Amino acid sequence: MATIYVLNGPNLNLLGTREPEVYGRATLKDVEKLCRDAGQKHGFTVEFRQSNHEGQLVDWIQEAHAQQAAGIVINPAAYTHTSIAILDALLMGKAPTIEVHISNIHARDEFRRHSYVSKAAKAVICGFGVQGYVLAIDGIAAMIDTSKG
Amino acid sequence: MATIYVLNGPNLNLLGTREPEVYGRATLKDVEKLCRDAGQKHGFTVEFRQSNHEGQLVDWIQEAHAQQAAGIVINPAAYTHTSIAILDALLMGKAPTIEVHISNIHARDEFRRHSYVSKAAKAVICGFGVQGYVLAIDGIAAMIDTSKG
Amino acid sequence: MATIYVLNGPNLNLLGTREPEVYGRATLKDVEKLCRDAGQKHGFTVEFRQSNHEGQLVDWIQEAHAQQAAGIVINPAAYTHTSIAILDALLMGKAPTIEVHISNIHARDEFRRHSYVSKAAKAVICGFGVQGYVLAIDGIAAMIDTSKG
Amino acid sequence: MATIYVLNGPNLNLLGTREPEVYGRATLKDVEKLCRDAGQKHGFTVEFRQSNHEGQLVDWIQEAHAQQAAGIVINPAAYTHTSIAILDALLMGKAPTIEVHISNIHARDEFRRHSYVSKAAKAVICGFGVQGYVLAIDGIAAMIDTSKG
Amino acid sequence: MATIYVLNGPNLNLLGTREPEVYGRATLKDVEKLCRDAGQKHGFTVEFRQSNHEGQLVDWIQEAHAQQAAGIVINPAAYTHTSIAILDALLMGKAPTIEVHISNIHARDEFRRHSYVSKAAKAVICGFGVQGYVLAIDGIAAMIDTSKG
Amino acid sequence: MATIYVLNGPNLNLLGTREPEVYGRATLKDVEKLCRDAGQKHGFTVEFRQSNHEGQLVDWIQEAHAQQAAGIVINPAAYTHTSIAILDALLMGKAPTIEVHISNIHARDEFRRHSYVSKAAKAVICGFGVQGYVLAIDGIAAMIDTSKG
Amino acid sequence: MATIYVLNGPNLNLLGTREPEVYGRATLKDVEKLCRDAGQKHGFTVEFRQSNHEGQLVDWIQEAHAQQAAGIVINPAAYTHTSIAILDALLMGKAPTIEVHISNIHARDEFRRHSYVSKAAKAVICGFGVQGYVLAIDGIAAMIDTSKG
Amino acid sequence: MATIYVLNGPNLNLLGTREPEVYGRATLKDVEKLCRDAGQKHGFTVEFRQSNHEGQLVDWIQEAHAQQAAGIVINPAAYTHTSIAILDALLMGKAPTIEVHISNIHARDEFRRHSYVSKAAKAVICGFGVQGYVLAIDGIAAMIDTSKG
Amino acid sequence: MATIYVLNGPNLNLLGTREPEVYGRATLKDVEKLCRDAGQKHGFTVEFRQSNHEGQLVDWIQEAHAQQAAGIVINPAAYTHTSIAILDALLMGKAPTIEVHISNIHARDEFRRHSYVSKAAKAVICGFGVQGYVLAIDGIAAMIDTSKG
Amino acid sequence: MATIYVLNGPNLNLLGTREPEVYGRATLKDVEKLCRDAGQKHGFTVEFRQSNHEGQLVDWIQEAHAQQAAGIVINPAAYTHTSIAILDALLMGKAPTIEVHISNIHARDEFRRHSYVSKAAKAVICGFGVQGYVLAIDGIAAMIDTSKG
Amino acid sequence: MATIYVLNGPNLNLLGTREPEVYGRATLKDVEKLCRDAGQKHGFTVEFRQSNHEGQLVDWIQEAHAQQAAGIVINPAAYTHTSIAILDALLMGKAPTIEVHISNIHARDEFRRHSYVSKAAKAVICGFGVQGYVLAIDGIAAMIDTSKG
Amino acid sequence: MATIYVLNGPNLNLLGTREPEVYGRATLKDVEKLCRDAGQKHGFTVEFRQSNHEGQLVDWIQEAHAQQAAGIVINPAAYTHTSIAILDALLMGKAPTIEVHISNIHARDEFRRHSYVSKAAKAVICGFGVQGYVLAIDGIAAMIDTSKG
Repeated sequence: MATIYVLNGPNLNLLGTREPEVYGRATLKDVEKLCRDAGQKHGFTVEFRQSNHEGQLVDWIQEAHAQQAAGIVINPAAYTHTSIAILDALLMGKAPTIEVHISNIHARDEFRRHSYVSKAAKAVICGFGVQGYVLAIDGIAAMIDTSKG
Repeated sequence: MATIYVLNGPNLNLLGTREPEVYGRATLKDVEKLCRDAGQKHGFTVEFRQSNHEGQLVDWIQEAHAQQAAGIVINPAAYTHTSIAILDALLMGKAPTIEVHISNIHARDEFRRHSYVSKAAKAVICGFGVQGYVLAIDGIAAMIDTSKG
Repeated sequence: MATIYVLNGPNLNLLGTREPEVYGRATLKDVEKLCRDAGQKHGFTVEFRQSNHEGQLVDWIQEAHAQQAAGIVINPAAYTHTSIAILDALLMGKAPTIEVHISNIHARDEFRRHSYVSKAAKAVICGFGVQGYVLAIDGIAAMIDTSKG
Repeated sequence: MATIYVLNGPNLNLLGTREPEVYGRATLKDVEKLCRDAGQKHGFTVEFRQSNHEGQLVDWIQEAHAQQAAGIVINPAAYTHTSIAILDALLMGKAPTIEVHISNIHARDEFRRHSYVSKAAKAVICGFGVQGYVLAIDGIAAMIDTSKG
Repeated sequence: MATIYVLNGPNLNLLGTREPEVYGRATLKDVEKLCRDAGQKHGFTVEFRQSNHEGQLVDWIQEAHAQQAAGIVINPAAYTHTSIAILDALLMGKAPTIEVHISNIHARDEFRRHSYVSKAAKAVICGFGVQGYVLAIDGIAAMIDTSKG
Repeated sequence: MATIYVLNGPNLNLLGTREPEVYGRATLKDVEKLCRDAGQKHGFTVEFRQSNHEGQLVDWIQEAHAQQAAGIVINPAAYTHTSIAILDALLMGKAPTIEVHISNIHARDEFRRHSYVSKAAKAVICGFGVQGYVLAIDGIAAMIDTSKG
Repeated sequence: MATIYVLNGPNLNLLGTREPEVYGRATLKDVEKLCRDAGQKHGFTVEFRQSNHEGQLVDWIQEAHAQQAAGIVINPAAYTHTSIAILDALLMGKAPTIEVHISNIHARDEFRRHSYVSKAAKAVICGFGVQGYVLAIDGIAAMIDTSKG
Repeated sequence: MATIYVLNGPNLNLLGTREPEVYGRATLKDVEKLCRDAGQKHGFTVEFRQSNHEGQLVDWIQEAHAQQAAGIVINPAAYTHTSIAILDALLMGKAPTIEVHISNIHARDEFRRHSYVSKAAKAVICGFGVQGYVLAIDGIAAMIDTSKG
Repeated sequence: MATIYVLNGPNLNLLGTREPEVYGRATLKDVEKLCRDAGQKHGFTVEFRQSNHEGQLVDWIQEAHAQQAAGIVINPAAYTHTSIAILDALLMGKAPTIEVHISNIHARDEFRRHSYVSKAAKAVICGFGVQGYVLAIDGIAAMIDTSKG
Repeated sequence: MATIYVLNGPNLNLLGTREPEVYGRATLKDVEKLCRDAGQKHGFTVEFRQSNHEGQLVDWIQEAHAQQAAGIVINPAAYTHTSIAILDALLMGKAPTIEVHISNIHARDEFRRHSYVSKAAKAVICGFGVQGYVLAIDGIAAMIDTSKG
Repeated sequence: MATIYVLNGPNLNLLGTREPEVYGRATLKDVEKLCRDAGQKHGFTVEFRQSNHEGQLVDWIQEAHAQQAAGIVINPAAYTHTSIAILDALLMGKAPTIEVHISNIHARDEFRRHSYVSKAAKAVICGFGVQGYVLAIDGIAAMIDTSKG
Repeated sequence: MATIYVLNGPNLNLLGTREPEVYGRATLKDVEKLCRDAGQKHGFTVEFRQSNHEGQLVDWIQEAHAQQAAGIVINPAAYTHTSIAILDALLMGKAPTIEVHISNIHARDEFRRHSYVSKAAKAVICGFGVQGYVLAIDGIAAMIDTSKG
């Protein structure tokens, strides 16, 4: 069974406990549940991870490539804007990467509008709240269907 | 029955006939079909339009607001980067706006990475090909469910 | 009897119906009335127009010049910041142009502070609400008096 | 009787004596007369001042606020572009401030297009020659009528 | 017989009537005649158009491609600097595009030196006055000879 | 008989021997032939030169002015972007200067889009391959006809 | 008893052993002693930590918030200028944060003058050497007194 | 007995009377009292001044140096960002200068984040409200102790 | 007898007492002597002034123009880089202005390389130490000779 | 026996397995062998390490300094462009640092051309493929010979 | 007898023959005469040269240093703004260099305001016309007197 | 026998005679010897040249290509930062080019950090002093071995 890695960057472990007016009330636990359900719907196993460490995220992306993951859904949070190491890790593999942001980063501070990760992403979704993760998994499923079809 | 406006900017009338390696082989006709199907699935009527004229797109956004559309899905194409008039039109209404791009604009020319429209968009989707329109309509449906729920 | 063209750019047809805390409650109808009254006071006929189309505004500016208008009062709205075509149209005539903005654009988003139109304007008024149109017409009258005087 | 402060920045004491093709032939004396007449028309006392000293202008703005002036009309001349101290003084009071420039600063040197003062101004008028002062006072009168009305 | 589209942007309908010291005394009518003569010399039919509307120009470029024009000669005037929509329309076809400007835009205002259209143009000519249109048609003829040869 | 100087900058002596897909297969010898033929057609003597030395090009431009050349056709190659000395030399004379580039420099690296030489050029042609030299000479002939006419 | 977290970024473990002319001779051990003494004076427990790992600092900031720390004193060293992850971690809590730098960063390299952390800090102290930590703790004590008072 | 100069820039005379949510309710009188008390604690005489005039502040800094002040505490307010004259005056003396800001300027408008004065300051404190003055005087005392010790 | 105004900006009253390795050991008194001697040599009266106040310098420049000074020698010190008011005052008169700097400002901090005053200066001298004042007066004398001659 | 630390940044553990056309087919294992051989040739022990974690690289640099390494050869990969922490760690020691890149970073994306690490490096080598590591070790040996000699 | 090298950059051989309203009517011959006279007055031999070649100017600067010239007066003309090679040549010697410009470059095009040469110059003079050469030689003489004295 | 061209840019003829603390005491003669020895070791003939003239360096690069040199080692000195002509000459050939700098240019003035030449270089070495030339030749030898092997 194909696997999708869902990787979460720094401070997302606190999701749902702070600034609910921006990020909503769903916790990372809830997001994991949403992803597993969406994965199941399309026949994917979901590896769901979170870390505050840039290097850990790089390790996991390498693992995803080594495991021949069907896709990577990544919400790099703050590392979106500063990490070339994550960009490079993503560039070294073939799995389609979907970059997800809970809020619309284009309508926030200037420095949050630039993304290194987007250069390696196949697609980007932002502003749908935690539902964005589900759309990302749906999107990967549709991509696979299309390329098979 | 709630209506969703799907608005397409300049040159999208030629979709599927040029540069299929970038934009795929689906025509705008096909996209309209995909949108109507996705609308139907969620109980939406779909108003599907295309224009090469910035002013025409502004008129239609005003119409969508006047008709109390449930949502606006807009692929502003080249006007993404240059039209403050479209931004202002979107800002004057309450319907959630989803900005869609067929390719990942963040991985293209520098001048295609800036979007005025994003400042008014609730959410942004890019890089999923024409499937992005479907995800956008799914996303609006999920938003409405959430806010009702 | 001398004519003054009062030209309004995109989205101003909705004036008074959205964001009254920024733009006030007067509608474009009310502005037209204010302008006609101010015109009458100084003996001017007023041509009052609005369009969401950049090209339409260019056409009207050319018409104003062809009609040897005594002055042009223009609120280019979003096209203030993006239209070199309107700038060029204004540059091709002799009628004094007064650029009007309802709110103080200098205290808004960075991209709203730059005006192409100002390079062709004789004078600029912003921040007086719809009363700015009246002051613009008073100003043209005073200019004509001065140059006659 | 309500008072309006009309404050003039550096080198305006020489108005009318140099570069008449840019600034006209009216002297600061003439401007004072125009302002007093306009004030009288609307029932305002006019305090008319000029200084070449940035600090002096700050002092007078504080005085205007302390005297609960009905409005401040300020032509900050060169300090428009360099004085955050004047900006801060204006920000500390409630009286509506109208920034006036005799010529259209938007059509001059790049460094004359940026205004710190505009961030604190309720409205800005430029390009009407010395008539701009009269329009500014008319504008304040209209604002007061509106807010009373 | 092969067709060449000669497309003219905003305000060029007034050519010859304003600022003759910059643009010369030839009218657009005269330019049309020059183009038809040059076309005839090389055996081309000439479609000659002008519009103040960006969207109209996009429509015509699409038409030129649909009609399998032998070449497009475009003087985009103000849209040179602001229109990505025209750039995209040109990029979608195969006909060689020659960008023409009557004056040397490199020796004018900073904002007139940047051209989006140049990114899609095969060649650029500026500064030859209306004779530039003739050279452009001569150039297309030479290109066709070369590629045949 | 009037003389036209055709001056070629650094590395153009290797034309036709490298990167034919960008610059074509014509050698500088061929270009010289094209220029002489074009000159003859209009009754011009052609002085045809090439140097890798900035100072040599400056010397030749001074010579052209001293010889009262009817025109200068210059392809400054790399010095286009870096040489103010060549710009100044051109500015010191009256002969109309046509700047020629074989490829379209506007569609190349950022640093190849800026030209100092354009500030002194009467006209600019790029992207027509070596045929651009012929068009330049035709253009000078037309300019002379016009000014005589 | 209220706790204050004192967090130190990369390379501060070597404090006092290198470049004493810039950073003084006090070691991190000495700073810990100074902080504990200052804490004791005001009745605070002090958690004193150092790490070279950005992720570790994020973890500790989250811990401080979870432990309802009375304040965070942070010298982010090199991460001051590059870490949005630390900024976000600080933004997610309520404890007042004091940013401390041993030297005056405003008088150093350009890239050391920008601080992401400052956007989340309540206050900033730099240039007092290791005494800055003591002033920071004094400052937190005074803030608490004020808000109680 | 050693003297410390505490110098306050433009508009600080109004401290406590405007925008208390930003600057608190303490008046400049209160700040003077806080400084005198803090000075007394460490055995310093305090010279406490305020001016809206840049030149006056330069005069006082020169006086402080001439009087061999033990230190200068300066809150340059708006002149922080614009005065090279104050920077130069500070650079000409040896007394340690502490720059104080009541609010955290790094979290405010872009143009308030740049400080010329910081280049001459030994240390900078911001964001502690009026308590920052006390910490500055404590800091000078500690510096003197250290250099004696 | 013709008069030359020699105006000195902020902190120059301390010349010779600080940083002699940069500015030399000559005091402002010595400079005054040098100027009077140089003036006498050419038959000029010298008005020699210094102020730390920008407004004062503006007043004196106006006085110089009113007195029909033969020339103005100005060392604006820090105001070189920040004062548009001084620039404007100089622009309003006809007397040739020579800008003098004791050290070579082009070899110092970036922000000391930009001069507003240079836009109004006839000539600029820097790097000759206090001898630069003498050369400036010699230069004015030579200019007058030339224009007479 | 003197030790050289060879430190490798993120994603270099995958060397030789991806994009061989850019980075060649040699694995990190092969590079280690090359380094040990080169070290042996000059009588150095080689400590060879790789990590995806910025903080880990900082730790190892500190260790190298503590162990009085004869030199540090570092290929910081993605951290080249973003890590001030690594720069600071290098700056705190005396061992000569050689920065190595396998490909020529100057001919790649704009954001890959800036290196923080270069500010602390004694020398930089790029573009020689994995052979660059050998040249770096040869270079350190030569430096030591020179300083001894 | 001490020698002063007076070096002139590109196009200065045409001095006096073009644009006399900017550069005056004096030819380079006249300037040479002025320099020889000024040299004689102070007991200097004058080596007077001109070249359009950057490399030639570098050679001569090296020669000046090798000949232990008492000073270099250089008007680098266009190379002022583009030549780091000349800057480096000047930096390699000890002779005081005076940079001279005939017109005030600070009041001209933006790109003419930047000077590489100024970084190596002891002093800069511009705007005095050809008299600037004389002042430069006077200035060198004064410098030598001062350092002797 | 294969030939390597070693080309040296402006002012390198003075190597070893100035600023030995930056560039060391080795003369260009010594460098030539080092290069010949290194060449001999690998079986290369070495063409060793130096010029202060940009055009001369372009000529020699063309010669190297014409002679089918095995490699080019170039230290372009000041032309590194300003010469697109040298870049273009290098781009026109196939011989691998190694750019060498004696000092680490990345740790010097901002304007010395940009290199046009690097865009055409296969590899870059800086900071090893004159030993860098030897490493460059070793590197070319290794490249040839690798491509043969």
